[in-house]
Amino acid sequence: MAAAANDIAGVPTTEEEQQQVVNPWEVSAKDGGKIDYDKLIDKFGCQRLDQQLIDRVHRITSRPPHVFLRRGVFFAHRDFNEILDAFEKGQKFYLYTGRGPSSEALHLGHLIPFMFTKYLQDAFKVPLVIQLTDDEKCMWKNLSVEECKRLARENAKDIIACGFDISKTFIFQDFNYVGGAFYENMVRINKCVTYNKVVGIFGFSGEDHIGKISFPSVQAAPSFTSSFPHLFHGNNNIRCLIPCAIDQDPYFRMTRDVAPRLGYHKPALIESSFFPALQGENGKMSASDPNSAIYVTDSEKEIKNKVNRYAFSGGQDSIENHRKYGANLEVDISVKYLSFFLEDDVELEHIKQEYGAGRMLTGEVKKRLTEVLTTLVERHRRARELVTEEMVDAFMAVRPLPNMFN
Amino acid sequence: MAAAANDIAGVPTTEEEQQQVVNPWEVSAKDGGKIDYDKLIDKFGCQRLDQQLIDRVHRITSRPPHVFLRRGVFFAHRDFNEILDAFEKGQKFYLYTGRGPSSEALHLGHLIPFMFTKYLQDAFKVPLVIQLTDDEKCMWKNLSVEECKRLARENAKDIIACGFDISKTFIFQDFNYVGGAFYENMVRINKCVTYNKVVGIFGFSGEDHIGKISFPSVQAAPSFTSSFPHLFHGNNNIRCLIPCAIDQDPYFRMTRDVAPRLGYHKPALIESSFFPALQGENGKMSASDPNSAIYVTDSEKEIKNKVNRYAFSGGQDSIENHRKYGANLEVDISVKYLSFFLEDDVELEHIKQEYGAGRMLTGEVKKRLTEVLTTLVERHRRARELVTEEMVDAFMAVRPLPNMFN
Repeated sequence: MAAAANDIAGVPTTEEEQQQVVNPWEVSAKDGGKIDYDKLIDKFGCQRLDQQLIDRVHRITSRPPHVFLRRGVFFAHRDFNEILDAFEKGQKFYLYTGRGPSSEALHLGHLIPFMFTKYLQDAFKVPLVIQLTDDEKCMWKNLSVEECKRLARENAKDIIACGFDISKTFIFQDFNYVGGAFYENMVRINKCVTYNKVVGIFGFSGEDHIGKISFPSVQAAPSFTSSFPHLFHGNNNIRCLIPCAIDQDPYFRMTRDVAPRLGYHKPALIESSFFPALQGENGKMSASDPNSAIYVTDSEKEIKNKVNRYAFSGGQDSIENHRKYGANLEVDISVKYLSFFLEDDVELEHIKQEYGAGRMLTGEVKKRLTEVLTTLVERHRRARELVTEEMVDAFMAVRPLPNMFN
Repeated sequence: MAAAANDIAGVPTTEEEQQQVVNPWEVSAKDGGKIDYDKLIDKFGCQRLDQQLIDRVHRITSRPPHVFLRRGVFFAHRDFNEILDAFEKGQKFYLYTGRGPSSEALHLGHLIPFMFTKYLQDAFKVPLVIQLTDDEKCMWKNLSVEECKRLARENAKDIIACGFDISKTFIFQDFNYVGGAFYENMVRINKCVTYNKVVGIFGFSGEDHIGKISFPSVQAAPSFTSSFPHLFHGNNNIRCLIPCAIDQDPYFRMTRDVAPRLGYHKPALIESSFFPALQGENGKMSASDPNSAIYVTDSEKEIKNKVNRYAFSGGQDSIENHRKYGANLEVDISVKYLSFFLEDDVELEHIKQEYGAGRMLTGEVKKRLTEVLTTLVERHRRARELVTEEMVDAFMAVRPLPNMFN
């Protein structure tokens, strides 16, 4: 999985970049504007996650759908309805998500798929595999094998801090886990995918190295239970549901193409939009600009400062105009961030109404956002402090998970 | 390693195939003639293995050079002199060879690199790693993962029967061994090689699958000791010598290009010509034509029959003409085979003189060849019968080899 999951690329510089580009390594909107998600759904051929499906999740799980579902953060899917059909007939599935460990600390955007996956694990009570693609980061970035392995382990601590159920969760890093049954599946997948095919899907060029060209099979392999002979008690065709940002769709389009040829179910997907940079939806969250994102290691003071100074405001340029015209909620990052992380639907609606009508000022909204983010980050920090090396080892231990598939 | 090592391709069919082609998957001479090895040395940029070097091996090892050295079967090298320089200064090296396990039984051509490697191991008393590329065969042939794994293990028995010293030999099959430090090296190598580069070296096309495109790193990795952390007691830059057929040169040209960028020694090579088919040097040893080769499973009767019926003769079309003009030794397969497997230099020279002068008839030469091959095959069969599953496990056990590098 790639860090690009939460990047919004900046202003395109050449003629050919003026079109919207979304793939695992580049996300850029047309003409520096916002990503057109409807167009993306059409282009990728996935389906919109509609209210009916959300209501169905509510009914099946007997709990309110997660904020990220209610507010359209996860907005697209592939075969999620089939996962629910099978689940209602008593057939469990397993979850697969992951991360490309290229940075020391995660930012809030990185947490989104994990927060949502934890909700899915709790709601459906199913096993979960989490892939840390240290090999991917080594091949794409100028990082050594050793550094990528270390980052994977550090990132695992942040992931564990999200609260996953150790009895149902297997975390692995590719440099340690690739081999055996997993490698066998990589080879089986490789045999089904031509160079021209990956060029069509991912846009590689002849000057890309051969590690990149064959990497897609590494990210595809966890979609099949047979890659984890220790986990699933010999059940080799259990359905897989993958929560991820939509830039990862190309990997799994490829995987779904290959699956029937190997005699496996196609993995189902539930896909999120991108988490915007503080500077706005056409800004870019960039590791080289720490002010573009809130990190889970930021102090309360840093959060307050970043929100106040950098969070793009939809408020008007004077109090008079603001009282008169109200804020433009479409571009306001504080409102956007609150819609991700403020759980209370009533309060969020109230803020949007008051702010949109000009009765609430940007400063007040930012104050509330600072509180919400500080609480979130503090809670994460405390949870991460409790994650020991032994816990990491325990999550990564090659062991059977509870057998719920017979 | 590929089975093509011992194939001579048949008559080219299209214009563009009229040139000599030698790569790991195709060996075809120009216009259906013989391989031009001088041209190959020029094209590949390796060096001829001259008499001076053979004499040096004799001196250093205090034993007569192997028949395959004396008679030019191994005829080319890369940096073999540097291996000897270092060896004379007390720096040991290790040997690396392998096989692509695509057939149940080996033919005589398959045995050649192993017979020669056993000689090198005995003469220099150095460790040896043998790679069985079951993954390669799975990706190139229409064979399942399971079948390739089974063939690798069966072939390991034939290899063990060649008499390798278990205390110095590690045999591994990729489907079981790829992972950990080996996979780390694969990724490091992958990063150094572009798609255009492998197309230039191996001639892949856009319709080739991505497994083929990244496979070269799997065959490159055993050239570096760090791929075997259990074997070499932490010595991660020991020189490697690779005995192989010259069609494998492209893999190691690539590896040698990459080695300095990873901080490793370039592997040295000692390279053989191809073992001809019974039908002649422009024939093709083919798994689909069992009469094109002698297999280690052939009975005495089968050997006799194959030699008498199929071994291309350089003798004249009538006894009168034969007595008058003598045999054409250049094209005679029986003489060629005897030059590989008849150890006695004096007897071989005698046969060549008598046969070439027309005093000996083809039937007599074939009778002698049948004896030599039957002895060889019988000896191999007896040795293979003694190879137990436990011995295979012991050769494949991940364990340290004797420490001779400090």
